[in-house]
Amino acid sequence: MTPFKLTEELLSEIEQLIENRENQTLRTMMEEYHYADIAEVIDELDNEQATFLIKLLDSEKTSDVLTELDEDIREAILGNLSSKEIAGELEELDTDDAADIVAELPKEIVQEVISEITDRDHARDIVDLLRYDENSAGGLMAKELVKVNENWTVLTCVREMRQQAENVTRVHSIYVVDEDGILKGRLSLKDLLTASTKSHIRDVYIPKVDSVNVNEKPEEVAKIMSKYDLEAIPVVDEIGRLVGRITIDDIVDVIREEADRDYQMAAGISQDVEADDSIWELTRARLPWLFLGLLGGVGAAGIMGGFETMISKHAILFFFTPLIAAMAGNVGVQSSAIIVQGLANDDLKGSVSNRLLKELLLATLNGLILAAVLLLFTWAWKGNFSTALAISISLIAVIIVAGVIGTFIPLFLHKRGIDPAIATGPFITTSNDIFGILIYFWIARLILQI
Amino acid sequence: MTPFKLTEELLSEIEQLIENRENQTLRTMMEEYHYADIAEVIDELDNEQATFLIKLLDSEKTSDVLTELDEDIREAILGNLSSKEIAGELEELDTDDAADIVAELPKEIVQEVISEITDRDHARDIVDLLRYDENSAGGLMAKELVKVNENWTVLTCVREMRQQAENVTRVHSIYVVDEDGILKGRLSLKDLLTASTKSHIRDVYIPKVDSVNVNEKPEEVAKIMSKYDLEAIPVVDEIGRLVGRITIDDIVDVIREEADRDYQMAAGISQDVEADDSIWELTRARLPWLFLGLLGGVGAAGIMGGFETMISKHAILFFFTPLIAAMAGNVGVQSSAIIVQGLANDDLKGSVSNRLLKELLLATLNGLILAAVLLLFTWAWKGNFSTALAISISLIAVIIVAGVIGTFIPLFLHKRGIDPAIATGPFITTSNDIFGILIYFWIARLILQI
Repeated sequence: MTPFKLTEELLSEIEQLIENRENQTLRTMMEEYHYADIAEVIDELDNEQATFLIKLLDSEKTSDVLTELDEDIREAILGNLSSKEIAGELEELDTDDAADIVAELPKEIVQEVISEITDRDHARDIVDLLRYDENSAGGLMAKELVKVNENWTVLTCVREMRQQAENVTRVHSIYVVDEDGILKGRLSLKDLLTASTKSHIRDVYIPKVDSVNVNEKPEEVAKIMSKYDLEAIPVVDEIGRLVGRITIDDIVDVIREEADRDYQMAAGISQDVEADDSIWELTRARLPWLFLGLLGGVGAAGIMGGFETMISKHAILFFFTPLIAAMAGNVGVQSSAIIVQGLANDDLKGSVSNRLLKELLLATLNGLILAAVLLLFTWAWKGNFSTALAISISLIAVIIVAGVIGTFIPLFLHKRGIDPAIATGPFITTSNDIFGILIYFWIARLILQI
Repeated sequence: MTPFKLTEELLSEIEQLIENRENQTLRTMMEEYHYADIAEVIDELDNEQATFLIKLLDSEKTSDVLTELDEDIREAILGNLSSKEIAGELEELDTDDAADIVAELPKEIVQEVISEITDRDHARDIVDLLRYDENSAGGLMAKELVKVNENWTVLTCVREMRQQAENVTRVHSIYVVDEDGILKGRLSLKDLLTASTKSHIRDVYIPKVDSVNVNEKPEEVAKIMSKYDLEAIPVVDEIGRLVGRITIDDIVDVIREEADRDYQMAAGISQDVEADDSIWELTRARLPWLFLGLLGGVGAAGIMGGFETMISKHAILFFFTPLIAAMAGNVGVQSSAIIVQGLANDDLKGSVSNRLLKELLLATLNGLILAAVLLLFTWAWKGNFSTALAISISLIAVIIVAGVIGTFIPLFLHKRGIDPAIATGPFITTSNDIFGILIYFWIARLILQI
């Protein structure tokens, strides 16, 4: 398999073919491509070219391509399609993907689009899914699954299953429910094939089945599925009725998005942006954290202004403020990142005070090593041992305080039900900068007796 | 389903049961638990308790628990088992998990353990897998898969398949190979069931199948499988022979580990550590980046020392160095993070110069807004317009340079084949701190004509 690679050349070739309306060549070309690759091409075309290309594809491929497009491109393309055409695409899709698309449609056409869906069961399932919060298991699940009643015989079950399985791309598991639709367990295909056709499902099913509640957060579902190596998990409502199923491919997306979000948060980017977004969107994502940094810097300037009298005799103290601020920031980010990651992976055992004690020891160890190096350097540079000592001792104190703050804040936020990831990056850097400089000048003044 | 939660109480209850040697209670308790949950318990026990508990489990569960344990705990437990016992556990595992465990065993017992495996095919497959680099598709794949020869009839195929499928937990796809073992395509179970038993496989199989080379990087495999929503992918060697299969559950782990690593890199933590690792391990992971920060701080101090003559007339310039350093660092991290993420997700289209131009515009926009705010503040504070102007203009220059450096370095590293993620975090912060302060004092001197 030669992996698909969208080069500049390929893109301009396709644009040329669209320009010249070479429908047959394009159609043959697109037949060879996977829908995810076609989506990649279309994301780079302008609105008119994109609509032209998508209308060339057969309907099944079109619908798959639609699910893979960037949200704004999809919106533009759907704007060029009639309600009937959109309904036709929705019909080809699994209910979860269809519901995601419907949720993005302009409010005034939703009703019309849904009424154009000819398969009324499919339409009903889509409408059901619209009720769930996007950020919950209900918002992730699809209605497609294979379920059988515990009171059926194996024979009835096999017959019913064949019919249901037609709409389900990958079966994974057969779920067993009672008369009220309550999830009771699951059934393996193998058990079904080896059991006598006359036996009842209730006598052959496996009563143990992992499931999640419709209101569960996607991150929790991801944790459960990856911990237990599940490829699909049934979703139940508040009274235990089987209402849908989440498959691992959707969870892979959740994991990726979560990781991207945490990474951006740590880097001081506040919204879900990509390198290819507009300058305006990128500014909105970056400016808030920079303002916070500016505020911190102004605070630091104010603090240093308060120690201005020291500047004539001990100018060297001022030269080391960027070092102190940088170390406070780095240590703070390191300790908060470890805690945030530990919380995300459910790895943190033991009490808060143990955690703080450990960080205290760790920071002291790091602080001592770094301060020793700095002491030798500063002493050699300026030849003044007491100043060098004051700077180095301050550094130890700053590192310890920064480490403890970096450990405490995410734990505190988590306890309060706030996402601890916001404590990483600029937030912790800025607060540690200020604390660091304050502590530094205090201690220096104390030691140098100014 | 009530999710398993390892509380302090539960842990001490289990420790008590082990202390009192209440084998029957423990056995019943563990039968109820999923192996991933038991692994979580064992990770918290001491060596002796852990070995006691694991010997209580039935062999199938033991082997699954082993694969889920922390590496150092597993090593300790295996140290308490005989070669025959270890071989027994390996026999229960899929070849990929078994090979991972063998790779961790002390060299002197590997030979003995492998010779104790009674299923010689299984032993051979494990040894085959040991040859592959851990950090490649070959290192991830398992030997368990269902493959059929294109020259077989459907009847032979069904018979052979039944036998092969016994060793494969989830079939996913049936792979078709030729006489030389070259991967030709795949077969769906449905096609197989509807085809006449006398027809040949070569007439019914699907010739299109995604596959990866044994030498492919795990991150690439993850990208392909998540882009194309695959639940399993066949692995071929240099001449196209089918040698193994990678399933999505292993890829979920790869994605998680990659995200964790990038996050740690951005936070200045240089090895794969967890909050529960020893202080010594945590120090080794954190100290190198802190040294880099120290070096940068010393460099900044040196630069400021060079501008010492300005301190008597323009002390305020020195008060703003932490602000300048912080802004340079924040902007650098923001722009490099966006690029690193874009590279990781294959989202970056267009040339390097376009990318730099865009960052230039973006940084200028951010810089102008922030500098305007700072100008007003500084002017109001000290009442000296020209100093305030000098600081603000420097800030714009620093932000632009920081943004361009933050964009360029990861792109450059990527082009050179180096992981661009190392350019985030302390590396970019430190270099930008130094550049920032240097530019700041240069421009200030120029404007203030000192």
